[in-house]
Amino acid sequence: MTDKKKVLLSGMQPTGMLHLGNYEGALKNWVDLQNSGKYEIYFCIVDWHALTTAYENTADIVERIYQITADYIAAGLDPEKVAIFVQSDVKQHAELQLLLSMITPIPWLERVPSYKEKVETLGLDSYGFLGYPLLQTADIIIYRADGVPVGKDQLPHLELTREIVRRFNYIYGDVFPEPEALLSDAPYIPGADRRKMSKSYDNHICMGDPPDKIKKRVMSYYTDETKIHRGDSGHTDTCPVFALLKIYAPDEIDKIKSDCESGNTEWGCVKCKKLLADRIIEKFTPFREKREQLLTDREKLRKILADGAERARIRAEETMKLVRKALKMWSEQ
Amino acid sequence: MTDKKKVLLSGMQPTGMLHLGNYEGALKNWVDLQNSGKYEIYFCIVDWHALTTAYENTADIVERIYQITADYIAAGLDPEKVAIFVQSDVKQHAELQLLLSMITPIPWLERVPSYKEKVETLGLDSYGFLGYPLLQTADIIIYRADGVPVGKDQLPHLELTREIVRRFNYIYGDVFPEPEALLSDAPYIPGADRRKMSKSYDNHICMGDPPDKIKKRVMSYYTDETKIHRGDSGHTDTCPVFALLKIYAPDEIDKIKSDCESGNTEWGCVKCKKLLADRIIEKFTPFREKREQLLTDREKLRKILADGAERARIRAEETMKLVRKALKMWSEQ
Repeated sequence: MTDKKKVLLSGMQPTGMLHLGNYEGALKNWVDLQNSGKYEIYFCIVDWHALTTAYENTADIVERIYQITADYIAAGLDPEKVAIFVQSDVKQHAELQLLLSMITPIPWLERVPSYKEKVETLGLDSYGFLGYPLLQTADIIIYRADGVPVGKDQLPHLELTREIVRRFNYIYGDVFPEPEALLSDAPYIPGADRRKMSKSYDNHICMGDPPDKIKKRVMSYYTDETKIHRGDSGHTDTCPVFALLKIYAPDEIDKIKSDCESGNTEWGCVKCKKLLADRIIEKFTPFREKREQLLTDREKLRKILADGAERARIRAEETMKLVRKALKMWSEQ
Repeated sequence: MTDKKKVLLSGMQPTGMLHLGNYEGALKNWVDLQNSGKYEIYFCIVDWHALTTAYENTADIVERIYQITADYIAAGLDPEKVAIFVQSDVKQHAELQLLLSMITPIPWLERVPSYKEKVETLGLDSYGFLGYPLLQTADIIIYRADGVPVGKDQLPHLELTREIVRRFNYIYGDVFPEPEALLSDAPYIPGADRRKMSKSYDNHICMGDPPDKIKKRVMSYYTDETKIHRGDSGHTDTCPVFALLKIYAPDEIDKIKSDCESGNTEWGCVKCKKLLADRIIEKFTPFREKREQLLTDREKLRKILADGAERARIRAEETMKLVRKALKMWSEQ
């Protein structure tokens, strides 16, 4: 056993302001992992990945990087404790992807479940899009990460990463650990239309939204559609508002459940929504204030990301020296 | 009109010692282009490309880089006048390939003639092998090359490069010139078995081979197989030895042609071969001495390549700044 901290890597596309699904499903867990003090953590804002879909419309990416960085820090990520950085500031990711490309059979990439689906729905057929999971592999293993905090939908990508690691180590000798998935118990966060909360469905609530915007969105939520009149008994197990109340009003949840299911005429869906809106606003107001304050000083955010990139590059370059040596490349002979 | 020198890029895989086909078909032309004083030239030894086929057996690559560098310089390339460097020393090639991958449809790569052929003959199916012509595109345009000295077999690759350049400039604005082919009048250089001279056929004569090895190989050449006895009349138009004598014994060629075709009993195939061997040995002896001398000082060769890489990186990084700016990337905003 060693005292060395385990290394974690997490990446997120620069989608701009984060929503409650991002927070409850990932970011909150990252903050806990950071605060546990057990890990050396790299948070990579993957702007190169964003180009796979946004190559024709790159104008927003920079602003989105600022927004997501402010959200990270306002939510509790501490740039003194973890490295937060932009992928394209660490060129070694591109070099490693290129080297891995030589040992990665195309069928391995084609069989990633999200690939064929997106080829069909988005009409993407670029070489870069096919290589997406390979770049993701490079993002992870360039830090010789032991673990990756992921959601279940990311497991096939991570399995591919592990497969490529095994192949690399078999051909060139042990350089990389096989990264493990750190699955968190992410609650289901429904959007206003009951589907999973997502910016692409426009059914989301951002952590940094102003109170009136949060209120308006919450009031637009679907509830149990079989509960038409206040006296009807409701079904809390399928109601998206109830799902969110479990998270944001746990102290009230037993009473709400009983009132809703029994058809108490004193308590209806509008009251549920008002309570939910109040609680979300209350919880995220300090967060919003902090992010707004952070965003007034762009130079400082830039410096934070530059510092993070500097630390990431040191680890990435260490890895690349091992890789180049294992491949008997010119520079390491 | 501008006085600025046009930029040329040429790349060669680190195959080790060069043979007469490499010299007469490419290297000799490069020396002429260099000595014309009209161009700014980058010679790139593409070791990353070598990995597409040699990923499991990389041990020889470094030695081959030394050998090819010695051959270049001994043949007349002057590292003071042109930049000779190793591809993997200029990481920007990998970054540019990655960015280009986002705008390059897979079918464009699949339809390169050599692709399907090699998939079948070599059984290659790696992502990196499919991306070969895209990395080649990056190699060329990262120097904003106006021209590429190529053989006819490379024209489809260059056409793909021009297509990618047009697409890039259309989406992001004019950054790259469309590189033109500089076709040279390369003579046909047959190997000992009458096929095109090639290391993979083991029918070649290296410029740096010692005299006895050259002699042995020349004596093993096919000649006109219908000329069995010395008195038979030969067919110079199909004789591989005659093809080489045209290059290496032009002063004797008329007499040889007449003696061979008339079936002069004083002159037969063995005499042709002896003459050819003598002439090749004579021509390449100073070359061989120079390359052997160069190879005694590996540190000096390494320094030459490091200097070349330094100059290449300056140009490549200039280009990448333009590219990142055109793509509105984080680092250039």
